[in-house]
Amino acid sequence: MQSQSLERLKELYESNQESTLDAFIEFLKFPSISSEAEYAPHVHACAKWLKEKMEGLGFHTEFWETIGHPVLYGENLNAGNDKPTLLIYNHYDVQPVDPLELWKSPPFEPTIRDGQVYARGAQDNKGQCFYVMQALRLLLEKDGSLPINIKWLIEGEEETGSEGLASILSERKEQLKADYLAIVDLGMPAAHIPAITLGTRGIATFDVTLKGSSVDLHSGSHGGVVFNPIHALVDILSKCRDENGRIAIPGFYDDVRAVDEDEKKRLFLEFDHESYFKAFGAHPTGGETTLSPMERAWTRPTFEINGIHGGYTGDGFKTVIPALAFAKISCRLVPDQDPKKIGSLLAEHLKSLAPEGIEIKVNVHAGSGGACRSNLHSASVKAFSKAYEEVFSKPIKYTYEGGSIPIINALSDASGSEVLLLGLGLPDDYMHAPNEHFGIDRLEKGALIMARGIEFLGEKS
Amino acid sequence: MQSQSLERLKELYESNQESTLDAFIEFLKFPSISSEAEYAPHVHACAKWLKEKMEGLGFHTEFWETIGHPVLYGENLNAGNDKPTLLIYNHYDVQPVDPLELWKSPPFEPTIRDGQVYARGAQDNKGQCFYVMQALRLLLEKDGSLPINIKWLIEGEEETGSEGLASILSERKEQLKADYLAIVDLGMPAAHIPAITLGTRGIATFDVTLKGSSVDLHSGSHGGVVFNPIHALVDILSKCRDENGRIAIPGFYDDVRAVDEDEKKRLFLEFDHESYFKAFGAHPTGGETTLSPMERAWTRPTFEINGIHGGYTGDGFKTVIPALAFAKISCRLVPDQDPKKIGSLLAEHLKSLAPEGIEIKVNVHAGSGGACRSNLHSASVKAFSKAYEEVFSKPIKYTYEGGSIPIINALSDASGSEVLLLGLGLPDDYMHAPNEHFGIDRLEKGALIMARGIEFLGEKS
Repeated sequence: MQSQSLERLKELYESNQESTLDAFIEFLKFPSISSEAEYAPHVHACAKWLKEKMEGLGFHTEFWETIGHPVLYGENLNAGNDKPTLLIYNHYDVQPVDPLELWKSPPFEPTIRDGQVYARGAQDNKGQCFYVMQALRLLLEKDGSLPINIKWLIEGEEETGSEGLASILSERKEQLKADYLAIVDLGMPAAHIPAITLGTRGIATFDVTLKGSSVDLHSGSHGGVVFNPIHALVDILSKCRDENGRIAIPGFYDDVRAVDEDEKKRLFLEFDHESYFKAFGAHPTGGETTLSPMERAWTRPTFEINGIHGGYTGDGFKTVIPALAFAKISCRLVPDQDPKKIGSLLAEHLKSLAPEGIEIKVNVHAGSGGACRSNLHSASVKAFSKAYEEVFSKPIKYTYEGGSIPIINALSDASGSEVLLLGLGLPDDYMHAPNEHFGIDRLEKGALIMARGIEFLGEKS
Repeated sequence: MQSQSLERLKELYESNQESTLDAFIEFLKFPSISSEAEYAPHVHACAKWLKEKMEGLGFHTEFWETIGHPVLYGENLNAGNDKPTLLIYNHYDVQPVDPLELWKSPPFEPTIRDGQVYARGAQDNKGQCFYVMQALRLLLEKDGSLPINIKWLIEGEEETGSEGLASILSERKEQLKADYLAIVDLGMPAAHIPAITLGTRGIATFDVTLKGSSVDLHSGSHGGVVFNPIHALVDILSKCRDENGRIAIPGFYDDVRAVDEDEKKRLFLEFDHESYFKAFGAHPTGGETTLSPMERAWTRPTFEINGIHGGYTGDGFKTVIPALAFAKISCRLVPDQDPKKIGSLLAEHLKSLAPEGIEIKVNVHAGSGGACRSNLHSASVKAFSKAYEEVFSKPIKYTYEGGSIPIINALSDASGSEVLLLGLGLPDDYMHAPNEHFGIDRLEKGALIMARGIEFLGEKS
C-alpha cells in the first residue's frame, strides 16, 4: 500500500517534470539577497511569487510584516481537528554572491550543467523550499486533499539571523501551534546516504573595529611611532585560539554538554579525506587537533574569522598605516552554550587584549541562537526515517549539522512542537559559495520524501 | 648682498602670486596615480604639462621611456663648465586616494581652505616640485641666467618604487653626472622649524597570500574541519613582532648600524604628544617600547601591515570561511640593512609559520631600497643650511626622515654626486592620506630657499 502510494506520486512527478523545472528556474532568478539593502525589492518580489504558488495549492496565505523582510505564512487545515498539524519551515532569502568573478555562470541566471542547477540559492534554501511545494502539489493531485493539516512558514531573513521573524513569534503563537515542526534546510553526508539530522550548532556573530588614529597615516613618517590597528587586530585575534585549535576565551567551554555515547554510536562520522580534498581543495587540519573532522564539525564549538579588512588592498602598494581595522567573527555553539553568555565572554576577552593607544569596539549582533537537538525516538523522526528509507531503498543514517538555523529553537517554543531537521543538501553543493548548485534528481527525491513523510505522520494519528 | 638678492627674489615672487597659484592648481588637477593602470593617460598628461613648463625655463627636455611611466629629464647648462652642476629630483606621480569618502573636497579638485591647498599630491610631491620650478623662474627673471648648471629629473613612479627609473640609470650616467643631488621630497618637524634631513629609511615591500581551500566554504559545515586562512594569517603576522614591539624575524636586526652619537646630539628629537594627538588622533604607543617616538621613527626599522583582506567585509554578515586571505607588508630599513637580505629573511620566516593545510606565497616586490645618509659637513648641506636660515631668519635644525625614497642611493651612485635631502613637508600635511594639503606660504618659502641655495652653491665654486 505504501509502495503503491510512492509509485503514484512518482508517476505524477515525472509526468510534469519540464514545467516543474521551469518554475524552479523562475524561483531562482529572484536575487533575494537579504543582507544587502539594495536587493530589498527583489526579496519582496520573490515572496510575492511564492505567495501565489502557495495559494494555488489551496492555502490561505498572509504576509506577516516585520522590522525586516516579510514572513510568508500559509495554512491548509482541511484535514480537520482529528488529524495532526505539521508546521514546515523554509526561507526564500539567499546569501550574497561575492566573489562574483569565481562564478562560472551568473548567480541569478540559473544554468544546468550535468544534471545540476547552478544558481545562488539553488540549494540553500530555494531548492529545498521548492520540493516541499511539489510534495504538496503531488499529494493534492493524487488524493484531492492533504492527509494532515499543514502550516507553512517561509521567511526572508534566515541568512541575516531571522531577526524579523523572531520578533513577532510571540504574537503568532496561536497560528503557529503545531504537533510537529519540520525545518527543511538540512543535508545528507553524500548523495547515496539518506540521513536525518538530529541537531544543529548554534551561532553568535560579532563585528570588531579597532581604531589607531583619526586619519590614515604614512607608514614612513609614523611607522614605529603609532600602533598600527591591523597589528593590534592580528595580535588580538591570534590570541583567541591556542596552538591545538582550542578556543582560548576564558569560560568558553564551561557549558559544553558531552555528547550522549549511545547517540554517538548511531552517527555517521565517516570522513573521506580524498573526496573532501577533491570537492573543496582543502585538508581537514583546522579545529581541535585531538578530535576527528566530523566530531569537530558537529559536536564542538568554533571561533571563526569570517572577514577581515584594513588598510590598502587594491593594485600596487600604498605605504599606509590605516586609521581603522575590522573583523567579522562568528562562533558556532553546541548544547548548552548560551549565545548571550558567549557574546559577553568574547567581547570581554577581545577588549582585554587591546594594546595601549588602540580603541576597540565589539558589536554583538542580534539573531544569535543556541544549538538544537531532536529526539531520535520521536514520532516525527520515525515517520520521516521511513520515508527516506522507502524513497532511497536504503537504511537511514543519522547526522548532526555543523551549520546553524538560529530560529529553530524559538519556532519550536512558539509552536509547541517537536523539531525535525530534514533536507537533501550535499556537502559539495557550494552553499554560501560561488557556483552553488542542486541536483535535478534531488528535487524529485525531496518531493517524494516530503509527501510520504506527511502521509506516514497522518497514518500515525 | 645676500639679503638684497633674497629681497629681489621675494619681490618677484609676490608680484606674480595669483598666476603662480593658478598654475599650481592646474598641476594638481592631473590624477597622476602611478599604481593604478587606468590612470596611465593622466600620468602621461601630467608629465607633458611639466615638460612644457620646463621648456619655458630654457631647459632642453627629454622623456626617457621606461617599462613604466616616462621619466622627464631637463637640463640648463648655460652656466658653463667652471660652475658646478646640481641634479634636482622630484616626482609627478601621486598615491591612490582611497578611502575617498573621507576627503572633505575631491582629491583632484584642488580647494583652498585657510591658506592650504587641499588635493592629492599637494605636498607629495607636486607642491615641492612646483616651488623648484618657481625658484628657477625667479633666478632667470632676476639675472637672465642660472648661477650654476641645473639638471632636473622628475619621475612618474616614485609611489610604486621607481622601478622604471632604476632600470635605466646605468644607461644615463653621462647625462646624470653632477656634483650635487638635491632630493626635494622631504620635510621639517614643524612650520616654524627650518630643518634639513640627513637621512631616510629604506624600504622593502611584500605581498602574502594564504590559501586554505579551492572555494569559499560555509563556516557551519566546515568550521572546525578546515584551517581558515584568515586565522593562519593573523597567527603568522602576530608572530612577526614581539610584545615589546621588536621585530621577531630571525636575523632582522643583524646589520643595523648604531647611530653616530655626535650626530644624534644635533638631531631634533622633540616629540609633542599633545599636538601629535591633535593632528592625527593617535598616541605614540607603537614600535619598540624602550625608545622615544622619534628615535623609533628615524633610527629603527619597522615591520608594518599596510593592508589585510579576507572573507566577507560588506554589509551584514556572511558565514564564510574564505579560500584565500591576503596581506600587504612593508619594512622600513636603516643603515646597513640590505633590502634583499631582509626580503629573504621575512619570506623564510613567514613560510616557516604556515600551518599544515595552508599554502603560503610571499611575493617580494621590486623597487626596494636601502636607507640613505648625508654628510652633515658637506658643501651642499652647508649651502642649503644657509638658505633655510636666511629665509626663515632662524638657525637650521637637522632631522632624519622615517619615510623612504628608494631611488636616492641609485641616483647618487649613477650621478656620482653628494646627496642632499630638502623639502618643506610638514607632519600634518596628510601625505598619502585623505585631505592631503600644502601651505600657500610654503610655495613661496620653498621657491626662495631653492633659489638662494642654488646661488650659494654657485658662490662656493
